[in-house]
Amino acid sequence: MKRTPVWIMRQAGRTLPEYRVVRKKHDFLTICRTPELAATVTVQPIDALDVDAAILFADILTPVEGMGIDLEFSPGPVISNPVRTREDVDSLRIPRPEESTPYVLDAIRLINEKLEGRVPLIGFAGSPFTVSAYLVEGGSSTSYPTWRALMYREPKTAELLLTKLAETTTRYLRAQIEAGVEAVQLFESWASLMGPDEYDRFALPYVKRIFAELRTTGVPLIYYAGGGATLFRQVAGCGADLISVDWRQPIGEAWRSLGDNVGIQGNLDPFALFGPKEEIESRVATILNDIDGRPGHVFNLGHGIFPATPWENAAHFVECVHRLSENRK
Amino acid sequence: MKRTPVWIMRQAGRTLPEYRVVRKKHDFLTICRTPELAATVTVQPIDALDVDAAILFADILTPVEGMGIDLEFSPGPVISNPVRTREDVDSLRIPRPEESTPYVLDAIRLINEKLEGRVPLIGFAGSPFTVSAYLVEGGSSTSYPTWRALMYREPKTAELLLTKLAETTTRYLRAQIEAGVEAVQLFESWASLMGPDEYDRFALPYVKRIFAELRTTGVPLIYYAGGGATLFRQVAGCGADLISVDWRQPIGEAWRSLGDNVGIQGNLDPFALFGPKEEIESRVATILNDIDGRPGHVFNLGHGIFPATPWENAAHFVECVHRLSENRK
Repeated sequence: MKRTPVWIMRQAGRTLPEYRVVRKKHDFLTICRTPELAATVTVQPIDALDVDAAILFADILTPVEGMGIDLEFSPGPVISNPVRTREDVDSLRIPRPEESTPYVLDAIRLINEKLEGRVPLIGFAGSPFTVSAYLVEGGSSTSYPTWRALMYREPKTAELLLTKLAETTTRYLRAQIEAGVEAVQLFESWASLMGPDEYDRFALPYVKRIFAELRTTGVPLIYYAGGGATLFRQVAGCGADLISVDWRQPIGEAWRSLGDNVGIQGNLDPFALFGPKEEIESRVATILNDIDGRPGHVFNLGHGIFPATPWENAAHFVECVHRLSENRK
Repeated sequence: MKRTPVWIMRQAGRTLPEYRVVRKKHDFLTICRTPELAATVTVQPIDALDVDAAILFADILTPVEGMGIDLEFSPGPVISNPVRTREDVDSLRIPRPEESTPYVLDAIRLINEKLEGRVPLIGFAGSPFTVSAYLVEGGSSTSYPTWRALMYREPKTAELLLTKLAETTTRYLRAQIEAGVEAVQLFESWASLMGPDEYDRFALPYVKRIFAELRTTGVPLIYYAGGGATLFRQVAGCGADLISVDWRQPIGEAWRSLGDNVGIQGNLDPFALFGPKEEIESRVATILNDIDGRPGHVFNLGHGIFPATPWENAAHFVECVHRLSENRK
């Protein structure tokens, strides 16, 4: 059996009725911080959707609380002490994950017990650039004006923040790997904010540093570059094994611009899951045709699944990937 | 004198101290709807920034009120009767601009009186896809999930909405041209939401229809495709004379992927205006070097200017474009 493996970004969460049962009793941060709950919701999609990997239930901002950031969700992230000045950056700590996020490491061990080897568990973190955008802005934004202005106005302050986040992220992902995740994905969710010069200065060096440090662990390294198509020549050299691409271009074209040295993950438009089942199947077929049997493809959406998605359609998507890719071999 | 012409998207507005004086007394919609006020703030940047064109002070949602949409700004757009169903779309009117937005046409006539031929006046509208995103979502969003789900779930409803907006937009821009604007720009501010298939179905046909209708007026047609780099092969055929591109890739590369049949506008990162003056100058020089004297370039930012931008830096940007481009000829 050589079917294409498939999982779904944000597969553990609001799409699933069994998640909503848990969520009704506990808020988002409580689920993240309680290993038993995090483990339960992480494992739910393995049965519900038949995906080929589990992805840790957590948030890309989870590790920043240990740096000294006050974080709430209502429902998006809200930071009451945003990072705006050199002094703010200076006061950030670089935490030891065993002390600041022990619940994440406990959850990983518990998830692996529950999985009993059925599928591998993927860990993750946000990239320094993307996490900085939230920390400086103080939450979500369509354009992150405060962060982007800081990059130009005080580049050295921005670089110090990125350096601290790179070290925090390296420690956090290394701890996840030591606790038992079998791959890690680094989310550059806001690659779309940058031109090539900014990417070269404020994003790529920190991503490279993290992946170089993690290379010795031997686990596959995945990098998601959302909205980053114009940066792919640079993205290709970041040190990841697999680049996770969005839905904005045909996957074959994306892979050609990334080159031969990396595998690819993606890239169905998450909103295609709101369409009829036949159309989901034909779109899966189009992507598989575009890949044309080339090894190194992991199927996924081009972005995290949206909460209102009918979960049956997500299960149908996974079934289509399995059936159609198996038939091709 | 053959220097490169330059203007700035959103040049009339919060960046300028003289705008803030007007804004302190009147809210945003009042300024839009009062020809004397709209004309005043439209003309302000001609003196303050020395730009080579005026752009009408209005909003891309201005024409939808005449369709039956309840619109407020606080400060972003808020729509109390969002368009979600076939019935909602059916009830939308296609207004006559002379009746629904007479103040826009009056403002245009007044602006041209005030300008006395110093610079041309550019009119604008939002593209049907981008305006639909706001109408269906009910306001701004990072991802427009309601609109994108509707495209997949009820494509015929989406197409009917787009058709009505295309007709409304054509009438609105034609009326602007008849009132005296000398060019028009159509804003596809959310091109970034689409892959090539969605662009082909839900955006491009309506843009083509509008530009084909306006072609007979003889005025230059500009199309802004924000975040649309992966769609440029399709964008190039939309019928515009000039494609306005964002800051996400070098302008020479963008122009090569658009091809030889269109001119180009752009593309400084608007946040570069938060940096030191020398860096603004060197970035302007880089863009001019990349253009290398090829005719058909209009300088601009790659996105609307942000409110907190120091206006002196915007003026410096314009001065750099003038001086450096003149020295090249």
